[in-house]
Amino acid sequence: MAINQKSYDYGAAKSSIREIAAYGAARKAQIGAQNVFDFSLGNPSVPAPDAVRASIVRNAALPASQLHGYTPAAGLPAARQAVADSLNRRFQTSYEPGDLYLTCGAAAAISITLHAIVNPGDEVIVIAPYFPEYRVWIETAGATCVEVMADATTFQVDTAAVDAAITPNTKAVIIDSPNNPVGAVYTRQTLLSLASVLSGRSDELGHPIYLVSDEPYREITYGAEVPWVPAIYDRTIVCYSYSKSLSLPGERIGWALVPNTNPDHDELVLAVAGAGRKLGFVCAPALFQRVLIDCVDEPTNVEAYARNREALAGGLRGLGYTCIEPEGAFYLWVKSLEPDAEAFFRRARDLELLPVPSNSFGCEGWVRLGYCVSYETIVGSMPAWQKLAESYR
Amino acid sequence: MAINQKSYDYGAAKSSIREIAAYGAARKAQIGAQNVFDFSLGNPSVPAPDAVRASIVRNAALPASQLHGYTPAAGLPAARQAVADSLNRRFQTSYEPGDLYLTCGAAAAISITLHAIVNPGDEVIVIAPYFPEYRVWIETAGATCVEVMADATTFQVDTAAVDAAITPNTKAVIIDSPNNPVGAVYTRQTLLSLASVLSGRSDELGHPIYLVSDEPYREITYGAEVPWVPAIYDRTIVCYSYSKSLSLPGERIGWALVPNTNPDHDELVLAVAGAGRKLGFVCAPALFQRVLIDCVDEPTNVEAYARNREALAGGLRGLGYTCIEPEGAFYLWVKSLEPDAEAFFRRARDLELLPVPSNSFGCEGWVRLGYCVSYETIVGSMPAWQKLAESYR
Repeated sequence: MAINQKSYDYGAAKSSIREIAAYGAARKAQIGAQNVFDFSLGNPSVPAPDAVRASIVRNAALPASQLHGYTPAAGLPAARQAVADSLNRRFQTSYEPGDLYLTCGAAAAISITLHAIVNPGDEVIVIAPYFPEYRVWIETAGATCVEVMADATTFQVDTAAVDAAITPNTKAVIIDSPNNPVGAVYTRQTLLSLASVLSGRSDELGHPIYLVSDEPYREITYGAEVPWVPAIYDRTIVCYSYSKSLSLPGERIGWALVPNTNPDHDELVLAVAGAGRKLGFVCAPALFQRVLIDCVDEPTNVEAYARNREALAGGLRGLGYTCIEPEGAFYLWVKSLEPDAEAFFRRARDLELLPVPSNSFGCEGWVRLGYCVSYETIVGSMPAWQKLAESYR
Repeated sequence: MAINQKSYDYGAAKSSIREIAAYGAARKAQIGAQNVFDFSLGNPSVPAPDAVRASIVRNAALPASQLHGYTPAAGLPAARQAVADSLNRRFQTSYEPGDLYLTCGAAAAISITLHAIVNPGDEVIVIAPYFPEYRVWIETAGATCVEVMADATTFQVDTAAVDAAITPNTKAVIIDSPNNPVGAVYTRQTLLSLASVLSGRSDELGHPIYLVSDEPYREITYGAEVPWVPAIYDRTIVCYSYSKSLSLPGERIGWALVPNTNPDHDELVLAVAGAGRKLGFVCAPALFQRVLIDCVDEPTNVEAYARNREALAGGLRGLGYTCIEPEGAFYLWVKSLEPDAEAFFRRARDLELLPVPSNSFGCEGWVRLGYCVSYETIVGSMPAWQKLAESYR
């Protein structure tokens, strides 16, 4: 084909998560929304805090050319200052606005970060099961995606397996904790062990291995500590989004942080800016940069997700399903009732249940249920889950 | 260096336009805003229409999870329908929502379009003088940027020169009319001649040469007709932004259109979607997608720019400067008073005048003055322009 084959393939294949969600929307139109139990997407069911609406309305009264003009590529200094101040308060750090590059969400932050650090031929390690777009962005940046399975019981990073997967071409490891799709939160001990492996191997290889910490779910936890990663490993770049914490996924607002712990901090800051420029990201949406100034410290409404989690995990366990107790994020990882998760998904779909099979996340035998849905969806789905379980007896 | 050298270079070099603007901002803080005459940026001085504010406030009252949720990657169907309807009314076309892919502005649209059609080793032709980021995006997509000078008198596309520059590797030509930086509007005759060259050479080469039509200034004209390019050349992809027409440059909202005239339309649509996915563009900002539904047909306030144009072009001509009468956009192309435009720029800067030297746009001997500034800036700058001219006598 004359055009770009890889772009065509990515467009034709689509994200399997989005495909299931599209099926769900069509099915709802067909048989009624209350009869379809769609657990596919990570679209927050909790609305944005009222402070966001208030900030939008207040900002809309500003002179329009001031409000909607280009911002610096890295973002409004006041917005970056607000984010830095918030991080410094919470994690006893000393970040400055210049360490932050505001982005169109975490997807842009990760894509930009990879383009900043990766050269063709490099390898980037992901911890399976993993968010499937990581592979797309890694390959687009010219690197190879290397999957390392998480510990099969705890779903913590298997740091010995990471160690074994490192080669002279390893440039970075991507982690996300609280984890999508499993809901694990990496412990301080896990991170210390990972840092020790990465430091040792960086020294041995004579080039740095970066840790890209993707943290959109940082605020959504059920008691677990989420350690601040750059305090544990100096060569960390943090990618963040307000999609989940402030329920703004459609507005595309987040950031990449190059912490001042990085020995090559100044080079990294420029490379991140250059990567944003290369890809056509001019600036993050200006109005929502201003919303950040007002709302950066708004608390996340975790209670609704906690209630959903209890109802879903408790309900499914009561029906005999095996699931991993989520410590964070809003996904439940449920063992498929047959080895082929795709076949299990199809049987679930016939009962109007829409989880995402684990093949999409690089492993076999599980499904992911997003419980960022209404409580009624969870309660209403239980008879279908029961039928599904019975169909395997 | 361990990180990506090209990203670092693009970050370290910065856009020269943005560098001059940053100098201007610093200088204003130093000596007072009224004493610095900054013509560097294309940040509209005309505020967004009142209808934009009304739409933002009205939409802000919607349920927040509906308002701020993920949209489909290509954009809300209703927003794409509104854009398609508007185009169909204005250009007697029959586009459908599926032909449109909403983007974070024209920069994203062009970057995505190039990643959709280009393969490594391809060549993409630009018409010099040209918007300098074209080169960045072309090279990032893996192609070579080939500069073809515009006609030296009219600044129309020199179609014979384009013909001469086409090789078996030519994949696309980028045009922008109304033109940044010169203000030329390509006539129907120019476009017919270009289409004839591209059709003939596509047939001869046995592969299509696409025309990427970058049109953020379509609505800003002073009487000239801006022909609808896909009606003249079938293999056109149109990239558009509301940055200038609705004065929303910071909000990053625009689109790529794959017109149904393209013989490989369906493949192109998928490749554009795949390219957006590859680069980390999840969706265009949701709130401003809704603003489009309300405001897609809001008229652009051209009067303010027309007044500025007359004052600036008339004023400079009165002082003996040579300039190209702009037929569209909001830039005046002024002949440098010495062959070295950079030297001329430095002498202007010493008088607190900040144009952009033409070297930034791929040619010698001119400067670009953005007249999307206050009328007072233009009038106030005249004594300095006079001093500058006198310094060359």
